[in-house]
Amino acid sequence: MKPLIALTIGDFNGVGPEVVLRAIAEPDINAICKPVLVGPIEIWQEAANSYIPAANLVQIDNPKSLGDDYSGIPVIHFDGYTTKDLSPGRPSRKGGLAAVEAVKKSLEICQQEYAHAMVTSPVSKESINLAGHSYVGHTDMLMDLTNTEAVTMLMVAGSFRVGLVTVHVPIKSVADTITEREFMLKTKTAINSLRNDFNIVDPRVAILGLNPHAGESGLLGDEEKEVITPTIKRLGKEGYIVEGPFPADGFFGAKLHHNFDLVMAMYHDQGLIPLKLEGFEFGVNYSAGLPVIRTSPDHGTAYNIVGRGIANLSSITEAIKLAVSVVHNRAAKTKVNKTK
Amino acid sequence: MKPLIALTIGDFNGVGPEVVLRAIAEPDINAICKPVLVGPIEIWQEAANSYIPAANLVQIDNPKSLGDDYSGIPVIHFDGYTTKDLSPGRPSRKGGLAAVEAVKKSLEICQQEYAHAMVTSPVSKESINLAGHSYVGHTDMLMDLTNTEAVTMLMVAGSFRVGLVTVHVPIKSVADTITEREFMLKTKTAINSLRNDFNIVDPRVAILGLNPHAGESGLLGDEEKEVITPTIKRLGKEGYIVEGPFPADGFFGAKLHHNFDLVMAMYHDQGLIPLKLEGFEFGVNYSAGLPVIRTSPDHGTAYNIVGRGIANLSSITEAIKLAVSVVHNRAAKTKVNKTK
Repeated sequence: MKPLIALTIGDFNGVGPEVVLRAIAEPDINAICKPVLVGPIEIWQEAANSYIPAANLVQIDNPKSLGDDYSGIPVIHFDGYTTKDLSPGRPSRKGGLAAVEAVKKSLEICQQEYAHAMVTSPVSKESINLAGHSYVGHTDMLMDLTNTEAVTMLMVAGSFRVGLVTVHVPIKSVADTITEREFMLKTKTAINSLRNDFNIVDPRVAILGLNPHAGESGLLGDEEKEVITPTIKRLGKEGYIVEGPFPADGFFGAKLHHNFDLVMAMYHDQGLIPLKLEGFEFGVNYSAGLPVIRTSPDHGTAYNIVGRGIANLSSITEAIKLAVSVVHNRAAKTKVNKTK
Repeated sequence: MKPLIALTIGDFNGVGPEVVLRAIAEPDINAICKPVLVGPIEIWQEAANSYIPAANLVQIDNPKSLGDDYSGIPVIHFDGYTTKDLSPGRPSRKGGLAAVEAVKKSLEICQQEYAHAMVTSPVSKESINLAGHSYVGHTDMLMDLTNTEAVTMLMVAGSFRVGLVTVHVPIKSVADTITEREFMLKTKTAINSLRNDFNIVDPRVAILGLNPHAGESGLLGDEEKEVITPTIKRLGKEGYIVEGPFPADGFFGAKLHHNFDLVMAMYHDQGLIPLKLEGFEFGVNYSAGLPVIRTSPDHGTAYNIVGRGIANLSSITEAIKLAVSVVHNRAAKTKVNKTK
C-alpha cells in the first residue's frame, strides 16, 4: 500500500511550492507514496512550470476517488487566489490566508481518511498575522482545529529525536512554564508517540536539566530539585524509562544522545541547537499527540532564495518519508491490536 | 623562549594531578614550555608514582631561579597537606583548601612575573564550599583576587570561540542579568582579548539572540529589540565588527560559526552545547580580561574515573598550548608597542 500524503502549499511566497514539487518528482518519494497537493491550482501550476514543467496537474475533489491507476499529480484546489496574488519572497495577507486554508483542507481530508497523513510546507508568522490569525505556527493551529490538549513538538533527524517541553516561550518565562504537570504531559505524549508512531517498544528517554550544570545541586537554580527530578522519579515509577536531569552541555559533549531514543529538552534552543548542528539538512518536525499524522520540514519560508530553484530538498523529503513510515507503523499497531 | 607555565593541583581528589603529570610528560608539551607544578609536593609525588614514576620532582622557591638548564620537574610547594588527606573521587574540605591555595600561589608567581601563565586543574564547587569559600569557580576567584571588574569566560576549541554574556546564572534570571551595560562589557572584554591575546586584528563577532528565533520581531520576547539590537548598533558605531542577533539554532545549523572569530552566547548552555558537541575533547576555558594569563581544561574533577589513568589528555594539553600561545602573542604585542 502506498499511503496518500497531503502536501500543503504553505506560504506561497516562500519556498514551499518549490520544495514540494521538486521532492515529489524524486523517484524515491514516488516509490513510497501518492502525493496530493493542497492549494490553489493556478499557483501550484505556476511553480510547476518552473520546477517540473512536464508535470500534469489534475484537479480532484478528494484523493480517495483516485483509485490505483491514474496519471498526473492530483490537486485539492480551493478558490480565491490567482498568480496575481504572488509576491515572491515577501510576507502577505493572501499568502497567510491560503496557507491556513491549505492546512484546514488537508486536516479535513486526513480526518475523513481520504488521505493518510499531511506534510505542511513552511509558513511565515508574519503572513499568518496579516491574515488575521494569531497562530504562532502549525502546531498550535492544528491543536486548535483538532481540540487536542497535548502535543509535543518532536524534532527528528534519523535516530536523534528531541522533544521540547516548552517551544515558543521567551527565555524569561521558560522556568515558570515548566510545571510538573506540563513537563509530565509533554514527556508522556512524546513517549507514547515513540511507541505508537515510531514503533519503539520501550523508548529510552534522557531528560536535560533546565539550568547550567543541571542546577548543580541547587547552587544554580532550584527547578531540577523541585520540579524536574521529582517528576522523573514519578515517570520511572509509572514504568517509563527516563534518566536525568543531565547537564545539557556535557550530555551532548559526551555524545550521550546516541544512547537514547528521545532527548527531552526544556526549551527551544537547548534542543534545537544540537539537533540542527548535527542533523541540519535532515531535520523533520513531528507533531506528537495529534489525532492526524503531520510532519513538516525543519526550515522556514526562506524568502531570500525564493524562485531560484536552489532550496535544499533533504528536509522535505525526510518529512515525507517520516510521514509514510508513521502511517505504516500506526497501521501495523492497529492490526496487532485487532488480532489480539 | 620557552614560557614558564604554572600548573595548579586543583582538587587533589579529582583527575587534576593525573592529567597534569601525564600531559607534561608528552614531548610536544615539553617542546613548547617549562612546566612548574603548584601544590603540596607529597601529593604531587604520590600521583607521579602512579603516572610518571621515572620523574624527579624538585621543590623550588620560585621558577625564575631555575635558569635554563635544570633537571627534574620543579614544584612550588606549600605545607599542610599529606597523602593522608587524600580521599580519591570524593569532595573534601582539605581538597578545597589546597585547590584555592594553589590558585593563590600561582597567581602570585604570575603577578611577580616568575611564571608567564597559569593553567588551573579542575576544582569541585562542593570541596571549595566545604573549605569555607563561596566561589562558584576559578573565574570569580581570580576576579576577586585580582580586583578585576570584567572577565568574559571564553571557551575555545580551535578557531571556534564562544564568549558567555552570562555564565553561572539560573535560566529564570538570565534575561534580567543581560543589561545593556553587562552585554557591552562582556563583549568588549572578549573582543579586546581576541586582539591582544589571540592576535586577531579585527575580530568578526556574531551575537546570538536570547529568545527562540531571536525573539521573532518581539513576538517571542522583547530583549532583542530593547537591549541586544541597540547594543549591537552601538558596538558597530564604535568600530567593532559585530553581527546579529542570530537565532541560535539556525545559526549553528547553517554552520555560520565557522565564519566568525567569536560567537557571543547569552547564557551557558546556548554557547557550550554547540562548542562541546563539536569540540568536546579539545575545549579550553580562557579567562578574557584577567591581568594574568589563565587557561583551564574544559572538564571537571571526573571523580568517577580518578586513579584509573584513563582521563583524556586532549583538553589539558590544549589548555597548556593555548596558554603558551597567549604568552607569545602578548609578548609580540608589547614589543610592537615599544618599537612604535
